[in-house]
Amino acid sequence: MFRSVSPQAPRRAYLAAVHTPLQPLLLKSLLLRGAEIAPHSPIVVGGGASPTRLDWAALRDRIARLGAALDGAGIGLNARVGTLLWSDLHHLELSFAVPLLGAMLHPANPRLSDDELAYTIAAAEDRLLFYDPEFEPRIEALARAGRLPTVERFIRCGPLPEQRGGGNGQLPGPPGVETWERFLGADIDRGDASGFDWPDLDESQPAAICFTGGTTGTPKQVVYTHRSCCLHTLGLALTDTMSLSGTDTILPAVHFFHAMAWGIPYAAAMTGAGLVLPGRSLAPEELLHLMIEARVTLSIGVPTVWLLMRAAIERHPDLYPVRHLRRVFCGGGAPTLELSEFFRRRLDCELIHSWGMTELNPVGTSGREIAVVEDLDLDPIERREHILAAGRPLPGLDAEILDDSGRALPHDGEAVGLLVVRGPCVLGGFAPTPTEGVPGGWMPTGDMASIDPRGRILIRDREKDLIKSGGEWISSIALERLILSIPAVRLVAVVARPHPHWQERPVAIVELDAGHTLTLATLQAHLGASLPRWQIPDDLLLEPIPLTGTGKIDKKRIRALLDERGYRLPVGSSPGE
Amino acid sequence: MFRSVSPQAPRRAYLAAVHTPLQPLLLKSLLLRGAEIAPHSPIVVGGGASPTRLDWAALRDRIARLGAALDGAGIGLNARVGTLLWSDLHHLELSFAVPLLGAMLHPANPRLSDDELAYTIAAAEDRLLFYDPEFEPRIEALARAGRLPTVERFIRCGPLPEQRGGGNGQLPGPPGVETWERFLGADIDRGDASGFDWPDLDESQPAAICFTGGTTGTPKQVVYTHRSCCLHTLGLALTDTMSLSGTDTILPAVHFFHAMAWGIPYAAAMTGAGLVLPGRSLAPEELLHLMIEARVTLSIGVPTVWLLMRAAIERHPDLYPVRHLRRVFCGGGAPTLELSEFFRRRLDCELIHSWGMTELNPVGTSGREIAVVEDLDLDPIERREHILAAGRPLPGLDAEILDDSGRALPHDGEAVGLLVVRGPCVLGGFAPTPTEGVPGGWMPTGDMASIDPRGRILIRDREKDLIKSGGEWISSIALERLILSIPAVRLVAVVARPHPHWQERPVAIVELDAGHTLTLATLQAHLGASLPRWQIPDDLLLEPIPLTGTGKIDKKRIRALLDERGYRLPVGSSPGE
Repeated sequence: MFRSVSPQAPRRAYLAAVHTPLQPLLLKSLLLRGAEIAPHSPIVVGGGASPTRLDWAALRDRIARLGAALDGAGIGLNARVGTLLWSDLHHLELSFAVPLLGAMLHPANPRLSDDELAYTIAAAEDRLLFYDPEFEPRIEALARAGRLPTVERFIRCGPLPEQRGGGNGQLPGPPGVETWERFLGADIDRGDASGFDWPDLDESQPAAICFTGGTTGTPKQVVYTHRSCCLHTLGLALTDTMSLSGTDTILPAVHFFHAMAWGIPYAAAMTGAGLVLPGRSLAPEELLHLMIEARVTLSIGVPTVWLLMRAAIERHPDLYPVRHLRRVFCGGGAPTLELSEFFRRRLDCELIHSWGMTELNPVGTSGREIAVVEDLDLDPIERREHILAAGRPLPGLDAEILDDSGRALPHDGEAVGLLVVRGPCVLGGFAPTPTEGVPGGWMPTGDMASIDPRGRILIRDREKDLIKSGGEWISSIALERLILSIPAVRLVAVVARPHPHWQERPVAIVELDAGHTLTLATLQAHLGASLPRWQIPDDLLLEPIPLTGTGKIDKKRIRALLDERGYRLPVGSSPGE
Repeated sequence: MFRSVSPQAPRRAYLAAVHTPLQPLLLKSLLLRGAEIAPHSPIVVGGGASPTRLDWAALRDRIARLGAALDGAGIGLNARVGTLLWSDLHHLELSFAVPLLGAMLHPANPRLSDDELAYTIAAAEDRLLFYDPEFEPRIEALARAGRLPTVERFIRCGPLPEQRGGGNGQLPGPPGVETWERFLGADIDRGDASGFDWPDLDESQPAAICFTGGTTGTPKQVVYTHRSCCLHTLGLALTDTMSLSGTDTILPAVHFFHAMAWGIPYAAAMTGAGLVLPGRSLAPEELLHLMIEARVTLSIGVPTVWLLMRAAIERHPDLYPVRHLRRVFCGGGAPTLELSEFFRRRLDCELIHSWGMTELNPVGTSGREIAVVEDLDLDPIERREHILAAGRPLPGLDAEILDDSGRALPHDGEAVGLLVVRGPCVLGGFAPTPTEGVPGGWMPTGDMASIDPRGRILIRDREKDLIKSGGEWISSIALERLILSIPAVRLVAVVARPHPHWQERPVAIVELDAGHTLTLATLQAHLGASLPRWQIPDDLLLEPIPLTGTGKIDKKRIRALLDERGYRLPVGSSPGE
């Protein structure tokens, strides 16, 4: 009955209307948006005698001037620019100007050893190096030793200590060193430069490089693209992630070399939120003063930051009238229930647990206490579980748990398997040689997790061999390799012991050749030649090393042994340590 | 001093780590996410004797079964599937299943005239047509007349009126017509089909087709892609747009043929929010009953919906204990300040003004009263301006205002120019022939607007020739063309007059040849042959038509004339009209 009596064929072939020209996802649009919708929302930078204050419109103009200077210095598509800076204004400007030119920012990590630092700067092939004056002796030594072969120009950002006070920042540096002001050159006195003509880019253009310890001892190069940064920014700002609004003022208590400060500056730009950068120090007293002065509503950091802040407030309850803080985002380790309760009771502030990895751009999950309609009837015990769980993945991030043979496990909250993830913000491989990847684009995280029937991921055991100290990874493999170079060391295993403030500290278990001995002091002196102090173990046990059936070192049995000896209990240090 | 003493060149060429395989933005991930994170969050569908209730897990399984049936019917990449349905469960299922197969859903608009309806179905080249039984006579007539040449199969979704009550929905239809149940075939009795293997797609794959009146009388075909839908969903859910959370239960009081219900079902899936669909009727009493029963927290609709709802509540203050509603998103026309105040005072509910276009996927702006830090010190007058302004663009949407010669005007809140937009959710052209586009990818919106120094867009004058009635556009050009076909009509202009509930209604001004006359009844009878009733003018003025210097009809002077005659005052009709 319904068949057409006049079956005339469509005359024209269907052409899908395309979104042409495809408008790419670019970091440029985030900066320009912040300056457009919130020209006078505050940007506050701490770390000096008094905070520096500007706003998004002024920042856009400063970044345009910097862009012109970088452009003049030949920094264009795919050029790499290194930094050895804290969370200061120069770093913020570079975090936009470099990617907006199609170049890549590499925020090098000053907490690395000299070897690692030189390795990362050379591996990233940084052509310019912007650095804080405090690092000048270190950089000078590396450069003199020929260990920074790719760096063409060195730019000192700020006066040297001896220039401070009387210094105008314009004093000529030693030969071969430029000041920030000289680098900006004639452009520094330009008026409004907001019209700088940023180039058109493809959204797959790399924007930034961060190194991660990964699962081996060699730092690995993680590259973020404009696309991955923009999608991460959208996911980060969502109500059920950190609910970032333009009415917030946000303080990232993480440095740029820590996964681009978790993308917070980009998210603040997109929403037009106020942005507060801490400068050098993440000490709780300085963060608290900044939070109070700048009316910070939302902050981000590793558990150590929040543990120390709690201790500071409890020591001096009247000194820190924190009134505006409403949400604290805790990543890089699970917060304790007690910490969460403290923030809720004392500050009327929600502590949100987040799990992520440098390879994820970096935020992977958010653990808001109540995040879907069906959570509304949770009982208190279930809410506690929520806080301890890492939460639900950001939109676009697929998560799965696999057994040893690669089969997906049930999401019943009980089964524990290797957490693998997939999505547009997940790195597909490490530069310079992309890895082969995994079937279906799934990236193994190295974390063991369960997923509950409401999609909440609970990290059960972090990657076995890594030690997380103060939010930074310590590679046990790297430590073991160095310790093995000590004469008479036969076998070695480095494992973590819990620590109330640094989360974990490394313990070395060493099996010596017969008739030899080794003291903790000797071990520490040996490692001190190659590693920063914070990576060096606090404890040494001389013990036979148990092996597995296949001859591998059995860390499971070593941990059980340490448990028996009381080494796995938290270190009893004072809150101010 | 800092020059490297050992200038060894980097040994390896830099290979940017790519996000390989690039994980595309696909609607599939939104559906699966909803079912994963909020399997039991409620989905409630009104319109029947009592609402139908299910949840995201059940919906995912139903959609998988539908996908298998569509796949079996040969619906794959680029196939088009038409619907003539209200906001019911079948439409919701199709809005996911069809795009997830790589095909395109075309929700045809039952409010179009038969001519327009047939045109859109043929232009979209719909191969299947799913329809509500109420439309069976209309579709049958069009099919018999050979005006649906592309449609291969007709699927009736639900029992015919005469089958209701005793009908089981399985009664055989007339020849050539299938029931929904028969279309699903054997698959209907499958158990859990959540494992249906949806194909891998490119994110630029078209997902849906919606027609818009645009600036001319012929409906234009707007195509949404998986990418544009996913990016729109992320932007829509943001705190400063509608702050959609998984703790919300959202009721879109807009139908699918209205720009895919403004993307709300996709946004509900992504966040795991509860979703309430109204069925057929958008009458305030029925919406209110649904809102109360399903504890709706957030709703979306055109101004007419909210005006009528206000009237209903004021008529029967005790009948509608609306307690959960917190945000109402008002698009398709500016709300009045009084309406906003009513929602705030009576319901403790924020009324958020949004401007958009079908071509934008469709939400373009959001006017939250306070959206950035610098808004916090707004005085009450500035807050009122906020409510009347359309608000700030969603992230990614660039907006500019241009003067007649195409130059950008200052964003001072005073200068008024043509609003042009650009971004990843902006259509690049209309199917089947993409337009050439505009320089730099800017799409003219046809709206005249100013932009204030805080980036807020204030629509000053909607596209001159269009009349917006009940949230739908009426093309004055189409009306004028039909009226010109009446003998003795020399010139005609159709302009809007304000209307308290429909926003605007068309008025026809006609200049007749000397010695002739025309009555409103004759005019309406003439137009009734081609147009639906709601598009037909309520008023006719016989007047000389003023012309501009270049000989064009001068609508500006016509509007001034109507103002003098009192025709531009709101029609004084009763709220229940």
